[in-house]
Amino acid sequence: MIKLTDFRTELVPALDSLLSMKLRQDIKEPALQAAMTYSVMAGGKRVRPLLLLAVVQTFQASLIPQSLPAAAAIELIHTYSLIHDDLPAMDNDDLRRGQATNHKKFGEALAILAGDGLQPLAFQWLSDLRFADTVKIKLIRELALGAGPLNMVAGQVADMQGEHKALSLAELKALHRCKTGALLKASLLMGAVICELDSKRTAALSDFADHLGLAFQIKDDILDVTSTAAELGKPVHQDQAANKNTYPGLLGLDGAQTALTTELTAARRALDPLVASTDISLLAAFLTELAN
Amino acid sequence: MIKLTDFRTELVPALDSLLSMKLRQDIKEPALQAAMTYSVMAGGKRVRPLLLLAVVQTFQASLIPQSLPAAAAIELIHTYSLIHDDLPAMDNDDLRRGQATNHKKFGEALAILAGDGLQPLAFQWLSDLRFADTVKIKLIRELALGAGPLNMVAGQVADMQGEHKALSLAELKALHRCKTGALLKASLLMGAVICELDSKRTAALSDFADHLGLAFQIKDDILDVTSTAAELGKPVHQDQAANKNTYPGLLGLDGAQTALTTELTAARRALDPLVASTDISLLAAFLTELAN
Repeated sequence: MIKLTDFRTELVPALDSLLSMKLRQDIKEPALQAAMTYSVMAGGKRVRPLLLLAVVQTFQASLIPQSLPAAAAIELIHTYSLIHDDLPAMDNDDLRRGQATNHKKFGEALAILAGDGLQPLAFQWLSDLRFADTVKIKLIRELALGAGPLNMVAGQVADMQGEHKALSLAELKALHRCKTGALLKASLLMGAVICELDSKRTAALSDFADHLGLAFQIKDDILDVTSTAAELGKPVHQDQAANKNTYPGLLGLDGAQTALTTELTAARRALDPLVASTDISLLAAFLTELAN
Repeated sequence: MIKLTDFRTELVPALDSLLSMKLRQDIKEPALQAAMTYSVMAGGKRVRPLLLLAVVQTFQASLIPQSLPAAAAIELIHTYSLIHDDLPAMDNDDLRRGQATNHKKFGEALAILAGDGLQPLAFQWLSDLRFADTVKIKLIRELALGAGPLNMVAGQVADMQGEHKALSLAELKALHRCKTGALLKASLLMGAVICELDSKRTAALSDFADHLGLAFQIKDDILDVTSTAAELGKPVHQDQAANKNTYPGLLGLDGAQTALTTELTAARRALDPLVASTDISLLAAFLTELAN
């Protein structure tokens, strides 16, 4: 199985050029095109698209070329959520990925509209895929549910409201499961849909996704405490300043590290039902990265 | 053929209870549910869903029950666009349909998120319809395109930017075609998709939609000048105050009336290819209402 670093080196540039080409094609209004493209192309790590593609690579590598636009659609949803999350009425952030946030660069109105334009574009791209209609409908449903008011948007609301009260660990887990976990999970399950995995394999991936999503958010919380702004490309120690509920805030830094290890171990164990028939090393490599 | 007033009396309550029931089902976070439901149930005229249903009634009345959730999905998109359009960074409106705008009632952050939650929910509802997958994909594509950065969102950007310069009549038409026309057109064409109309009939509806959309916006511009706030349920004379480009602003009130009549006549004429085989009276009734 290909190494994660090589997989990334091969596919991130492919994803980036696809995103850039399709954005040029599908937005004509110049200011809107500039604002939407600015944030999509701001150099994210493309974690969510890579997770979808890693599932496809693991179970049916030949479908990778056709899966790229599906993976790209997820990145549109992720980017819209970042643009809106940075707005003055929300987290009021000036920097993202080392650059001015969308509203700092283009003004608030255009930032709102850039986010608003990314959402339907994601579903347009999914409807245009060269897969069977049945597969496309499942992909659309998975992304709509993960990004929607039962999941990602509910997590944003809970996060915002949590600033005014201390959450329990169970409440914090539930919040993270929605806010960060749901879209990561949708990415993995969209990979399962493309490969038409049976329900047993899909259940294993779903379980993996739950723990990976939590580990991902705990790691993010830890980095906010331990990193410098230069390393992260955005201001650090923001969570504490905003009274955000975080793992280090609730459990201390050591407790958060332990929670991270627990989730990574559970995620790895979730893949056990697959190992007899499948090389899971590429999926497991995402866990190794989060551990370091 | 059923009269438009009777059609409305029968179907608006059905739409409203479906919307209310589905919103209760598909949003669990209490604050988010309250904010999303508030604006969707604020008593709009449901023009876009009714247009979809009028096409279905005209060509295949038996599909009306199954078409209701498709029509409801369009109303979610329309409502999100109103919530975001009213935001302080956009039109900064306090009143909508006679009630406080979403951000006045729930705060700006929740208003942004309520709008953000309505978009994926619309696509989730379309993916859940009991139509063939091929039909559902076409419905999703139509709505995503109409609501997306080539159409509705581009129109919002052009409208916002137009506040700083005088547009020509051609530019104003292009703006309105995107901002208001695209979603009205998507509604009619989604009706055509459900009835699996042939390309000739679909082309006639598409032509009808272009003129209806323009007529609809001209009428809205005229009402902003001639109505009282009590009649409209929102402040009047807002367009002039905001330096908005409008038909009365560009052509005077009489010129705008003439332009309205021209578009209504063209819309009616667009239905000519259908009259030999189809009772078009329900569709034509939308024009009569706009004329009065």
